[in-house]
Amino acid sequence: MPDQDTRPPVGQFEGGCAFADGAFVPLSEAKISLFDWGFTRSDATYDVATTWKGAFFRLDVHMDRFFASMEKLRLAIPYSRSELRDILHGCVRAGDLQDAYVAMVCTRGVPPRGARDPRMAQNRFYAYALPYVWIASREKQREGIDLHISDRVRIAPESVDPTVKNYHWMDLVQSMFEAYDLGRDTSCVVDGQGNVAEGPGFNVFMVKDGVVHTTDRGVLEGVSRRTAIELCGRLDIPVSVAPLPVERFRRADEVFLSSSGGGILPIAKLDGVPVPGFPGPVTTRIHDAYWAIHDEAAYRDPVDYGV
Amino acid sequence: MPDQDTRPPVGQFEGGCAFADGAFVPLSEAKISLFDWGFTRSDATYDVATTWKGAFFRLDVHMDRFFASMEKLRLAIPYSRSELRDILHGCVRAGDLQDAYVAMVCTRGVPPRGARDPRMAQNRFYAYALPYVWIASREKQREGIDLHISDRVRIAPESVDPTVKNYHWMDLVQSMFEAYDLGRDTSCVVDGQGNVAEGPGFNVFMVKDGVVHTTDRGVLEGVSRRTAIELCGRLDIPVSVAPLPVERFRRADEVFLSSSGGGILPIAKLDGVPVPGFPGPVTTRIHDAYWAIHDEAAYRDPVDYGV
Repeated sequence: MPDQDTRPPVGQFEGGCAFADGAFVPLSEAKISLFDWGFTRSDATYDVATTWKGAFFRLDVHMDRFFASMEKLRLAIPYSRSELRDILHGCVRAGDLQDAYVAMVCTRGVPPRGARDPRMAQNRFYAYALPYVWIASREKQREGIDLHISDRVRIAPESVDPTVKNYHWMDLVQSMFEAYDLGRDTSCVVDGQGNVAEGPGFNVFMVKDGVVHTTDRGVLEGVSRRTAIELCGRLDIPVSVAPLPVERFRRADEVFLSSSGGGILPIAKLDGVPVPGFPGPVTTRIHDAYWAIHDEAAYRDPVDYGV
Repeated sequence: MPDQDTRPPVGQFEGGCAFADGAFVPLSEAKISLFDWGFTRSDATYDVATTWKGAFFRLDVHMDRFFASMEKLRLAIPYSRSELRDILHGCVRAGDLQDAYVAMVCTRGVPPRGARDPRMAQNRFYAYALPYVWIASREKQREGIDLHISDRVRIAPESVDPTVKNYHWMDLVQSMFEAYDLGRDTSCVVDGQGNVAEGPGFNVFMVKDGVVHTTDRGVLEGVSRRTAIELCGRLDIPVSVAPLPVERFRRADEVFLSSSGGGILPIAKLDGVPVPGFPGPVTTRIHDAYWAIHDEAAYRDPVDYGV
């Protein structure tokens, strides 16, 4: 891929830029065919990295997962790891974004007319950078997020591999409607054994008697989740990665979410019932450490804005 | 919706026509935003009707299900039932298609920038007509379809309501790859209790000792499935709608699939093992009756080609 393609002018598409069909385009032109199996079969994988203060955070980890997800689904893109990095940097650069939400997407594509064989489809690649997305507004975070624990069961690993980041979210979206009906702010769902699973775009943690708990199964292995677990190691906070029964979860000392859409988000209430610690001491330490490591060189991949 | 909008010229988009953003367009222009939750959350429902010899088959039943699916997902379109019918007829007319695959799709749309609340999104509607699609080629049908029974579990009703026709198909697509690896032609998946569920775009039936069997749970209630069951009534063939264990299924006298993509399709082999009856007498009677009722006025809604 020649240099001029992956080095669009800074701010060419101020505020947000996509990469579709091999070219940088404004977000309004970021479209996929109605016939792409990525839509008609949700046969796609994606990943979302972020930039913070002009640098990608743990981009390598996101790219590792994206390539692993594609391999598991037998999808491929015509770009090397280094070219992928260039495209993602290009989207942020063209959008002239400091704090950005940066997605990379691979879809199955469209098999030849009349064929229903996914092996015959040319896979498609898309990317885009938007202003950083928060899964809850700053205002709502200050007020305190009220999390609904839905009875809905997350799509099981026997059906869809949850370690492949995927768009099978109807269960999560329907749980959000339930939450709104009940006057809550967001929701998480459970697994088939009555353990807390995950929410729309986040993993779920609790703190009990000084130990941090999160589930080990049936969920996306989020990069923010991984970062939180690693930070506990640094901070000498014990971590248990094991099934997390809803009844235990409801008696947590502290609860927080992890997401590339906001990092570490303390939870104030579970279904209207105040969580004793909000924002609790353990959550606060992990939260602060999460943002502190954004300044560490090993985790940063600065965007070249050409200034 | 004014007349000129829903009555495009016959053959305006010869061979296939879509309806997107309120206008009839060629298939190549049928695109959705990369940011539509219909893609990024698979938060959408759809239905597929067919025309045969210039008339829709059981269009009312498809429209009933489409409106019911939207209601269950809290989606809505700005068209009445009669307007929807006009749009679907318009797609077939503009494509000048006699035998057509006709899809209607409703997606969540895109919430305002920064919001993650699906209630704030304007739902989107799309439709299109293509030449009739067969889930297996005519040649393959004559040779005999070899069906792989995958161990993969269909997404459970506790996660996604299977009576809402949806695009959560990753389990089904992955089972197709398994089938190809094994040299089979297509695949079906099971439920969590070891019963045969459904395949990519079809319901599954067996005949044993003169009785037709199909499962009662965890699957799309297909219109072709319903037609097959109703035809058994007409033909005095006993039907059992109940869980169908894989071990019983493997000992079937006859096996067939039902789909709007081909009607009643006899199966020749299960994982390479010949099914004793191919195409068996019961399947053949249902197959012939299925196509015969396409000529009955009560099931036909003729397209006006203006000739």
